[in-house]
Amino acid sequence: MKVLMIVSHPRLETGSIANKIIAAEAGKLDNVEIRDLYRIYPQFEIDVQAEQEALEAADLIVLQFPLFWFSIPAMLKHWLDKVFTEEFAFGPGAHKLKGKQLLLSVTVGGPEGAYSRGGHFDATIDDLLQPMHLMASFTGMTAQDSIVSFGMMAGAEKAGEPSASEIQAPVHAEQLVALLKA
Amino acid sequence: MKVLMIVSHPRLETGSIANKIIAAEAGKLDNVEIRDLYRIYPQFEIDVQAEQEALEAADLIVLQFPLFWFSIPAMLKHWLDKVFTEEFAFGPGAHKLKGKQLLLSVTVGGPEGAYSRGGHFDATIDDLLQPMHLMASFTGMTAQDSIVSFGMMAGAEKAGEPSASEIQAPVHAEQLVALLKA
Repeated sequence: MKVLMIVSHPRLETGSIANKIIAAEAGKLDNVEIRDLYRIYPQFEIDVQAEQEALEAADLIVLQFPLFWFSIPAMLKHWLDKVFTEEFAFGPGAHKLKGKQLLLSVTVGGPEGAYSRGGHFDATIDDLLQPMHLMASFTGMTAQDSIVSFGMMAGAEKAGEPSASEIQAPVHAEQLVALLKA
Repeated sequence: MKVLMIVSHPRLETGSIANKIIAAEAGKLDNVEIRDLYRIYPQFEIDVQAEQEALEAADLIVLQFPLFWFSIPAMLKHWLDKVFTEEFAFGPGAHKLKGKQLLLSVTVGGPEGAYSRGGHFDATIDDLLQPMHLMASFTGMTAQDSIVSFGMMAGAEKAGEPSASEIQAPVHAEQLVALLKA
């Protein structure tokens, strides 16, 4: 199984703990190609053909991102807006994504309890990512159950102790790697 | 009432009918400042200070955009990700947006009936824009009822007849302008 992992964190090297650890672990597998969008396209000048070729070659597409403002980061949306063209991703005779698997691998700053119906935000992560699930079905992809880690916020740890991100990210990565190997 | 209208269409002059008409009508009012993000920031290099100053000066913030992939366009998300900083938009003692009004003014390509629970996409526009409503409450803004026009897709009209966009956009604009005058 060929895996394309699209990583969308604006400061993967300097500002991310969890996304960096998860991407590094997944990147150790031979069958995984990682594309770090904010690094490849610092001025948002996406190479549509290169991205479409990478997508076509993959069986499973993993979108790795932090939840920003209850949604996907801007770069990932830009990638969708630019790369998922009518000729490529939908429309008569152009279903290049049809039959592929899609997996959302998400880190969330806030606590799990806030993201529930009746909870602080009165919405689950799946509620908030409904546009992505509709995108999957619109393009003929099958969305697997998302992998989501909560409380991935820097600065909340006590001095000298590992952060929640440092503790949880390896667990998240292990769950993801097990899926990518299967 | 001072109004800031943030327009986010990647091809406002050449590829938009509805957003162009709506922005032009709103721009005739003396109390409305229009910022066309894709034009101002072709390489996504947002001037955070300029955007924050424009926001601070406004009583009502109108976000004018087409729905792309069941969500806001990438540029609008980039604007949110960059401009709505912790020092500015949320966090202790930094609620610069608190008390302002927010209005989503949205054009949608698909037909209205598709965007309902039980309908083709099994979600309303409000469901899909839930991240924006949560953003509003997180920053202390009050979201007014959105203005939404459906069927705003080029190419569906018969030769020689006006498109749905050309027919509906002035209606949408009139509704918006009435609110901005109030």
